[in-house]
Amino acid sequence: MNTIKVIKIGGNIIDCPDKLSEFLNDFHKIPGRKILIHGGGKIATQMGETMGIKAHMVQGRRVTDAPTLQLVTMIFAGLINKNIVADLQSVGCNALGLTGADGGIITSQKRSDASIDWGYVGDPIPESIHTAHLLMLIQSGFTPVFCAITHDGKGDLLNTNADTMASCIANALASQGQEVELVYCFEKKGVLRDAEDATTLIPRLNLSLYQKLKQEGAVHSGMIPKIDNAFESLQAGVKKVKICMAEDLDDYENAGTTISST
Amino acid sequence: MNTIKVIKIGGNIIDCPDKLSEFLNDFHKIPGRKILIHGGGKIATQMGETMGIKAHMVQGRRVTDAPTLQLVTMIFAGLINKNIVADLQSVGCNALGLTGADGGIITSQKRSDASIDWGYVGDPIPESIHTAHLLMLIQSGFTPVFCAITHDGKGDLLNTNADTMASCIANALASQGQEVELVYCFEKKGVLRDAEDATTLIPRLNLSLYQKLKQEGAVHSGMIPKIDNAFESLQAGVKKVKICMAEDLDDYENAGTTISST
Repeated sequence: MNTIKVIKIGGNIIDCPDKLSEFLNDFHKIPGRKILIHGGGKIATQMGETMGIKAHMVQGRRVTDAPTLQLVTMIFAGLINKNIVADLQSVGCNALGLTGADGGIITSQKRSDASIDWGYVGDPIPESIHTAHLLMLIQSGFTPVFCAITHDGKGDLLNTNADTMASCIANALASQGQEVELVYCFEKKGVLRDAEDATTLIPRLNLSLYQKLKQEGAVHSGMIPKIDNAFESLQAGVKKVKICMAEDLDDYENAGTTISST
Repeated sequence: MNTIKVIKIGGNIIDCPDKLSEFLNDFHKIPGRKILIHGGGKIATQMGETMGIKAHMVQGRRVTDAPTLQLVTMIFAGLINKNIVADLQSVGCNALGLTGADGGIITSQKRSDASIDWGYVGDPIPESIHTAHLLMLIQSGFTPVFCAITHDGKGDLLNTNADTMASCIANALASQGQEVELVYCFEKKGVLRDAEDATTLIPRLNLSLYQKLKQEGAVHSGMIPKIDNAFESLQAGVKKVKICMAEDLDDYENAGTTISST
């Protein structure tokens, strides 16, 4: 069967032009049907500062007032997304840059939280994901490249977590009977027992080991939502979920951490 | 035959949220296959000022150094394009926001000019236009919405004139045997004998009248490339070319100026 690879690349790689370029080359070489989802990186914060828009982060996520929504739309959907598309096109990959609003593929719900006003932050509504439109693009030979901006279907754009977006896309495709692999690429070798020591890589992580590591406090806080998403995707029918280093994408099957249901 | 309407909307309308919203509603109501190409507007200049990037215009066109290319990519491909897409999606139009780089649809050549360094400005290469990819999107039920950013096919994005982009797209589709109408929408009633007097509308403009008006100096300088593009499109096989007011899009057949080959 013709697997769809859903590859997510984190913001830290976006910030390094050389690493990003190498990553995109490796992404291009992955055979078959594939989708890229990219994070934001520090450039939004830096660009915001020159425009007098201060980043306000809570639990590693960006509180998104109206000027910040403008900022992330410009940076994520404009600057980063279109430069990735131009780069991929130059190596022969037929990339098509998208937000969740394009083709109505991903609708989100504005996050409501009693303790904090997140502003224009949205969480994808799993049942809203228009897999027919997405598959039409893939079957036509395009390689979708998503930034983590979605919309509410009522005219507002929403700032969305890229990890969540990647797993939602993978899950929706799996629920339609597609064979899907989900690969989270970031700056570390995978899930590590000691976040600062690459030799402590956990090659295979199942739920009981994950719970043990969480109890021990060994899993880094920013990793928890990523790993939670990964287990959810396995449950949703995604065939394989990997967490690996961006530089290892060319051999991701044999690199990083495999999330395992058993 | 199922005509493709190629509609171009100018920057002055982009600057007025109410007018833009009304225009998008009218655009949505146009039946059948259609493509929107939008200009930039003053927001790029305003946003550039807050970032310390000064606009440098020559003959009404923006000289595009590296920071300016970043700026227009953010504003045109990010902020403006994605807000238009979200707005159209909210009224039920299956919009898909694109640059010329997406899907490799439009490749441009960096403009070389002995007298001025335009920087990252590109003119579409007519024979590069990938009508098969564009038609695939349209046949799949998407409504392409282009901003005027293209690429050189070697990894660089390029700032492109939106009027030229609209006519190039229309011409390329016509050359593939498609029946195409091209509609330029802007802030005036159409081609006017006196640019300041809407009652001096010229309902039908042929080449000999155009040449006479140019000699008399009656045609406004910014109008000349637009009208030149319009005549070129007729020659290239586009069935109908109109220049009209954005507010008249709902009845464009009976509004504005019809460019006529006879």
